[in-house]
Amino acid sequence: MRIDIITVLPEILESPFSHSIIKRAQEKGLAEIHIHNLRDFSEDKHRRVDDYSFGKGAGMVMAIQPVEKAIESLKAERNYDEIIFTTPDGDVFNQKEANNLSMMKNIIILCGHYKGIDQRIRDFYITKEISVGDYVLTGGELAAAIITDAVVRLIPGVLSDETSALTDSFQDNLLSPPVYTRPAEYKGMKVPEILLSGNDKLVDDWKQEQAIERTKKLRPDLYKKYLED
Amino acid sequence: MRIDIITVLPEILESPFSHSIIKRAQEKGLAEIHIHNLRDFSEDKHRRVDDYSFGKGAGMVMAIQPVEKAIESLKAERNYDEIIFTTPDGDVFNQKEANNLSMMKNIIILCGHYKGIDQRIRDFYITKEISVGDYVLTGGELAAAIITDAVVRLIPGVLSDETSALTDSFQDNLLSPPVYTRPAEYKGMKVPEILLSGNDKLVDDWKQEQAIERTKKLRPDLYKKYLED
Repeated sequence: MRIDIITVLPEILESPFSHSIIKRAQEKGLAEIHIHNLRDFSEDKHRRVDDYSFGKGAGMVMAIQPVEKAIESLKAERNYDEIIFTTPDGDVFNQKEANNLSMMKNIIILCGHYKGIDQRIRDFYITKEISVGDYVLTGGELAAAIITDAVVRLIPGVLSDETSALTDSFQDNLLSPPVYTRPAEYKGMKVPEILLSGNDKLVDDWKQEQAIERTKKLRPDLYKKYLED
Repeated sequence: MRIDIITVLPEILESPFSHSIIKRAQEKGLAEIHIHNLRDFSEDKHRRVDDYSFGKGAGMVMAIQPVEKAIESLKAERNYDEIIFTTPDGDVFNQKEANNLSMMKNIIILCGHYKGIDQRIRDFYITKEISVGDYVLTGGELAAAIITDAVVRLIPGVLSDETSALTDSFQDNLLSPPVYTRPAEYKGMKVPEILLSGNDKLVDDWKQEQAIERTKKLRPDLYKKYLED
């Protein structure tokens, strides 16, 4: 899978893809992540990529020219399954969308910045608008990092069996049961007796019960989906 | 405001806080962000911080000892308003929580990793569990970056008037209206006539109308909150 990220702040994205699982996915050839500096596509002599918005008060806006050129130059090289714009008013990103995107071949992620982007880009070029949550960030770069991270780890071969995505939260609409590790007692804090029983059946039943109880209590919305599926 | 982040992968967080608005907030003395390597608190001779979970199948789990020591060593230095754990089954992060956290003095963010953390840490040390969205990441580092970014930009003095958080999406439960910038026509794509009219009152009315229409169409859940407030 190939992910092209277009941004005005490429330096923000230096470290998140250069370590750990996402780094290994690239080394194994399972994912290619390319970061493009939007300024490289500006035809302005000062390499500007923003401008004042029409009408008062909204602050600076990403201009149409550099974005159009960046997207067109990538599209000239290969076909893209989706051209995504990260924006707080996009469709809320979730595990289902991560699964969906992980099966694609080429995607572009355009990072929102300033007070927004010229609407014509959204109307004529963007195929999918994604919000990673109902909060505002200084820019779309961390949103692009989140989408890339959530998607790349789902590509077959990226995670080892031990870290397998199959036991993730949300995959079955249940939260994970609580987990414990050694020591069985630490400064007076003990792990539940049943986990030390050695009885796999009892432990599995307890885990399933705990997963259901936690989901019911903490996320009634997810529990409803679990019952419906 | 001071934010202490505890992580097994400090290198992931190198670039997100070293540029742009979050960098300037630190330079101005408005925010202090300290990254702590969890391994520095491990009493294991190989500096291990994870271990097998009790009961089969869940994979590796963050052990209690290093986390307890990291939190206690920070708490010995100052009081913390919240000790946050990033986890997909936490309370879903939103702009209201960002506003809330931005008024605090000291917070700890503990990044989740592996298949979870020894539940005793959650039961005895964590005061708030936050999920940045219904998706699974390779670790909690990007979630901590998101929380830090969303919170720090709200600290008074961090944003200039031009980028002011007051005109953000979500602050009034309405999405932003579409924005446009020059040129008024680009490769046949035109901006709406009304924005070129020079009539501020008409433009403001149009923006409000567009904000309401977009919210109604794209985010009926937010529109309901807007009507209720």
